[in-house]
Amino acid sequence: MNPRTDLALEVHETSPSPYPGVDCEELSLESAKITRIQVMNQQGSQAIGKPIGNYITIEVPPFSDETAADDTRRSAITVELKRMLPETGAILIAGLGNDRITPDALGPQTVERLLATRHISKELSQSLGLGELRPVSVIAPGVLGKTGIETAELIKGVVDQVSPAAVIVIDALASRRLSRLGCTVQLCDAGIIPGSGVGNQRQEINQHTLGVPVVALGVPTVVDVVTLANDLLTQNDSANPSLPQESSHMMVTPREIDTVIAHAADLVALSINCALHPHLSPELITALV
Amino acid sequence: MNPRTDLALEVHETSPSPYPGVDCEELSLESAKITRIQVMNQQGSQAIGKPIGNYITIEVPPFSDETAADDTRRSAITVELKRMLPETGAILIAGLGNDRITPDALGPQTVERLLATRHISKELSQSLGLGELRPVSVIAPGVLGKTGIETAELIKGVVDQVSPAAVIVIDALASRRLSRLGCTVQLCDAGIIPGSGVGNQRQEINQHTLGVPVVALGVPTVVDVVTLANDLLTQNDSANPSLPQESSHMMVTPREIDTVIAHAADLVALSINCALHPHLSPELITALV
Amino acid sequence: MNPRTDLALEVHETSPSPYPGVDCEELSLESAKITRIQVMNQQGSQAIGKPIGNYITIEVPPFSDETAADDTRRSAITVELKRMLPETGAILIAGLGNDRITPDALGPQTVERLLATRHISKELSQSLGLGELRPVSVIAPGVLGKTGIETAELIKGVVDQVSPAAVIVIDALASRRLSRLGCTVQLCDAGIIPGSGVGNQRQEINQHTLGVPVVALGVPTVVDVVTLANDLLTQNDSANPSLPQESSHMMVTPREIDTVIAHAADLVALSINCALHPHLSPELITALV
Amino acid sequence: MNPRTDLALEVHETSPSPYPGVDCEELSLESAKITRIQVMNQQGSQAIGKPIGNYITIEVPPFSDETAADDTRRSAITVELKRMLPETGAILIAGLGNDRITPDALGPQTVERLLATRHISKELSQSLGLGELRPVSVIAPGVLGKTGIETAELIKGVVDQVSPAAVIVIDALASRRLSRLGCTVQLCDAGIIPGSGVGNQRQEINQHTLGVPVVALGVPTVVDVVTLANDLLTQNDSANPSLPQESSHMMVTPREIDTVIAHAADLVALSINCALHPHLSPELITALV
Repeated sequence: MNPRTDLALEVHETSPSPYPGVDCEELSLESAKITRIQVMNQQGSQAIGKPIGNYITIEVPPFSDETAADDTRRSAITVELKRMLPETGAILIAGLGNDRITPDALGPQTVERLLATRHISKELSQSLGLGELRPVSVIAPGVLGKTGIETAELIKGVVDQVSPAAVIVIDALASRRLSRLGCTVQLCDAGIIPGSGVGNQRQEINQHTLGVPVVALGVPTVVDVVTLANDLLTQNDSANPSLPQESSHMMVTPREIDTVIAHAADLVALSINCALHPHLSPELITALV
Repeated sequence: MNPRTDLALEVHETSPSPYPGVDCEELSLESAKITRIQVMNQQGSQAIGKPIGNYITIEVPPFSDETAADDTRRSAITVELKRMLPETGAILIAGLGNDRITPDALGPQTVERLLATRHISKELSQSLGLGELRPVSVIAPGVLGKTGIETAELIKGVVDQVSPAAVIVIDALASRRLSRLGCTVQLCDAGIIPGSGVGNQRQEINQHTLGVPVVALGVPTVVDVVTLANDLLTQNDSANPSLPQESSHMMVTPREIDTVIAHAADLVALSINCALHPHLSPELITALV
Repeated sequence: MNPRTDLALEVHETSPSPYPGVDCEELSLESAKITRIQVMNQQGSQAIGKPIGNYITIEVPPFSDETAADDTRRSAITVELKRMLPETGAILIAGLGNDRITPDALGPQTVERLLATRHISKELSQSLGLGELRPVSVIAPGVLGKTGIETAELIKGVVDQVSPAAVIVIDALASRRLSRLGCTVQLCDAGIIPGSGVGNQRQEINQHTLGVPVVALGVPTVVDVVTLANDLLTQNDSANPSLPQESSHMMVTPREIDTVIAHAADLVALSINCALHPHLSPELITALV
Repeated sequence: MNPRTDLALEVHETSPSPYPGVDCEELSLESAKITRIQVMNQQGSQAIGKPIGNYITIEVPPFSDETAADDTRRSAITVELKRMLPETGAILIAGLGNDRITPDALGPQTVERLLATRHISKELSQSLGLGELRPVSVIAPGVLGKTGIETAELIKGVVDQVSPAAVIVIDALASRRLSRLGCTVQLCDAGIIPGSGVGNQRQEINQHTLGVPVVALGVPTVVDVVTLANDLLTQNDSANPSLPQESSHMMVTPREIDTVIAHAADLVALSINCALHPHLSPELITALV
């Protein structure tokens, strides 16, 4: 049985020997640890079970710890995100997930805090003293069970209307380790399959399906109970895990998951806003949203 | 000064003589009064200030009165809605408005209660005993200030992806009369200009802009303070109304607006669900949503 | 290490031999299984680790399954609750827990749906056709971390003001078995220690501290990760469980916990309302709330 | 007909001549205008229709204008509040109103942001570097229709348990002028009658009923439609106002009332937190809540 994780880092770190076709470099900053994994070719992709592309994991102090240096966390994410995005051109951001299921609500909660600018005329922007604003559109496409529309289809429809230079998708992820909940961000340019975090897999959202570059920003918010149980049992040399049938409908989250999601949404939104509008101060952006 | 109203009925009823090019018929049911206004030509359109088309107003007991016959209210809306929609084919429903502003939240709250079916395979539907389901997609497009995308653009993008036979748009409206708040539904086939209810006018959403028939379902939730004041003063032969400057940012709503919106969303959602899935009972639909 | 559970049933069922001083009888109804455990004396109390009293566990089809017979579930709870309450006299109901933490929000969400009647005069009640109403007061006392006041203190203060014949407290519980989440209700007359469900233990709420009989109604909404892990490992003869440090801040819940809580609150509220106002129909009560 | 207002200032300012037994002084600060009205005796009380006591009105830039100097607004409120409170001793704060009715939700939303400290031991406080904390308790007593308990009774019960040196009550108010919505705070030491803001009058909450000093902090969030209409008509010399019957259930609020309430709650909560814990910085307090 394969442990369930949406983090390339967690697949990579459990391998005893280096994967062929996969590069990994680590970087330790003052209050963030950054791991850059590059899946270079088809061989690497098959070995690590992830599409070809770059996967950046940023590990920071817990989001729920408000006394920690928010600026440092944010600037680590902002810097990595800017490296992945085109320098200019319109951006469409989609916050994936179900706003009625707390650990899946990261996407919808983040978009509430993003600064949409595409509709602001150059004249208005100048008169407000905001200078030239990069055109940004923001949507919360909802989930298939509520909309009847694949998230990939819905985003494609909007891409055709607003013709962005790139798309950012935000989603809640599943991690394998409890220790990664509430303190980890993964960026990747290989796209995303929505619903991985808390449900069934769906149509892919990537450069191939949308026609423009896609940067996926994900935050692990749950650990699968079956994965946790198997890890515990394997680790303890227990050969025959017998899990109760209900396990497949269960998830592990921090007790304070509502707060974790709210703080993660604050942090992710501000990181994106600052990456897209580097000439505006975080304080001004916060006042504008 | 023109009084502000989104109801064709309220323009029509204040005219001393019949408008040329406009037809009106009334129908009194047990617990609903139905007024059908037809704007037949350009002359009628200019006279009444609304695009050519049919405007059906359904006046029922207050939504907040839960002891009233919900079935009767619902069936009146369901019957009129079915008359306006194509008999078969996929339907896209868009709930317009801002879910953070209570009187504007009718659209988003209604879509939470709608049954999306487009993603349910024929096999699954049969195995669940639901028979053949009409394909329905459901979106809450948000508002321009939050998304940067005109609602009309966003719906157009989705229409291009899901190719519906018709689109239903749901929105909160402004009425002229306090007595119409919380007990009125307007259906029309002439499209809608989002934001009329509580803000600035935007791009039109109609058959011309979307390429498929559009049925707009609106519920008045606010009265404009300036309109109310002018009506009061005119009625009292007061010649020079001097309104405080703040009036333009103010609205009149029922004290219990939160409850009114919740009940209206329940009623509108069930009416639409029943119109689109007439072979399912209201109870079954409610359990499925 | 002791497994963590708030259900007397779960302590009882894991003992290989009967506990001295503890009685247990089971009852199978059409769609509910009822287990009545009586802790008869100090010996029984020490053996089972729960105060002297009666513990009724009602196991029903999952709350989230709306197509299941709601009436049967409700009537099982209503019948058992009525057996525990005084036949007449004022009742105070307190919904414990933190409304911002989903699995702890059962209490606050339930009180939103309860019918308070203490303020309704006999004249008004008669004129509304409601007959004679039992005086019911309803509070959501919040949590110590937000109020600075022990829940037991706050309820005591209100008891002194409204002098009820009995108090009902509603709280989310921790169970040991995943299979009990979302389909179990425990009633007991031995009081409650708030915060057991998701946090630290606090002052007891019982007949001794409040001065009037206390009936606690609890619904298990989480399983402790440490308990789950130990159970899995023990079951698999693994001797040395080594759990990650984060485990103590983690909990297991159903993926659809938001829906489970909402449905449980509906069911619990209606069961209580029907137990206290048996002369009113469930439909009328629902319309009044 | 008497115009409806909860602001002593609005009664005072409409009188052509000074009221006997009422003193008034004004103070203009950089970004706040402060009016101190003292109702000195029974004669003054009858003249102005308010109980004997001090009424401080603080008029500031709109709460919704986040670019305005928050510090100035806050410090004006904090300074006036400190003048009204005992210098030491435990404080109980009650946030009055109905959290489901937006313009009435100021109280419940404010208490969510208040720092409760009564349960924090001296040792814990010292070890966290917070110094000696004034004991503060915080409750949201709900509304009579939902609880069956008069707000005054419920607060009295809690006062008897926690024995505070003074009580602060927070409530939404009705003002007469649209221009005062969203930019005004009234402090008074004469107590409050809950429900004035949006409903029926109830038992008084004041030093007489609670046994300890009471400071009421109110923010006008609605204007009564009947009051507005009468003011407009009188102003225009219209003698016979004929208002539609529905008017009595209607209120005028700013369009963006949801945002106004959220910002007002932020401002009021921080002002109170700073008044009670002057040795902690606003930033630290915000991180702790």
